[in-house]
Amino acid sequence: MGQLGDLQVTVKVTVVNPASDDSSALGHGVAQLCRGVRETGSLNAAAKRMGMAYSKAWRVIRDTEAALGVTLLERDGARGSTLTEDGDRLLDAYFDIARQLGEEAQRLFSERFPR
Amino acid sequence: MGQLGDLQVTVKVTVVNPASDDSSALGHGVAQLCRGVRETGSLNAAAKRMGMAYSKAWRVIRDTEAALGVTLLERDGARGSTLTEDGDRLLDAYFDIARQLGEEAQRLFSERFPR
Repeated sequence: MGQLGDLQVTVKVTVVNPASDDSSALGHGVAQLCRGVRETGSLNAAAKRMGMAYSKAWRVIRDTEAALGVTLLERDGARGSTLTEDGDRLLDAYFDIARQLGEEAQRLFSERFPR
Repeated sequence: MGQLGDLQVTVKVTVVNPASDDSSALGHGVAQLCRGVRETGSLNAAAKRMGMAYSKAWRVIRDTEAALGVTLLERDGARGSTLTEDGDRLLDAYFDIARQLGEEAQRLFSERFPR
């Protein structure tokens, strides 16, 4: 049997709309997709990078926007897509908070169960 | 469209064994089951409370123990089950860390997006 100090804690962060019946939310997958759009300027390219069909990527974004009541992407004419200002701020918050909580989780766990 | 300040962040904490190929881990469901054992002194009663079959509850515990390399429960003769000392400490850690991170997540989010 192992030692508790060999274990680790992982954290999953999800942004939800408590006023919505819709359970769609911004979790790791949607955040990755939005980051792909930010980096490639295209939802199609972002989806491809994740091995996801464009139609599915578009549905995921649309469902998340509907659930959160926030527009994340705007189509940029025929050329591609960009994040809206809200999408940009939410994505930054998501990754920053996920990183901070991940570090905090490991710190709290190691305090109790030193290696 | 809604305001970012109306949204909330939820956090899921999972205890994993980075040295294990087995993806089983102690998440919310297993933690609830262990809490039920602590409160009822019986895995059967704990499973019932969650609407879970006893056979499934037993499998979930066994798989988690194997993945983490930690014994969580000990059968207490014919009378029922109790948490081991490791199980007890891990369960306390799980709920404390989940609560603290949940509060921290909401604090970090509200800082960025005040209501």
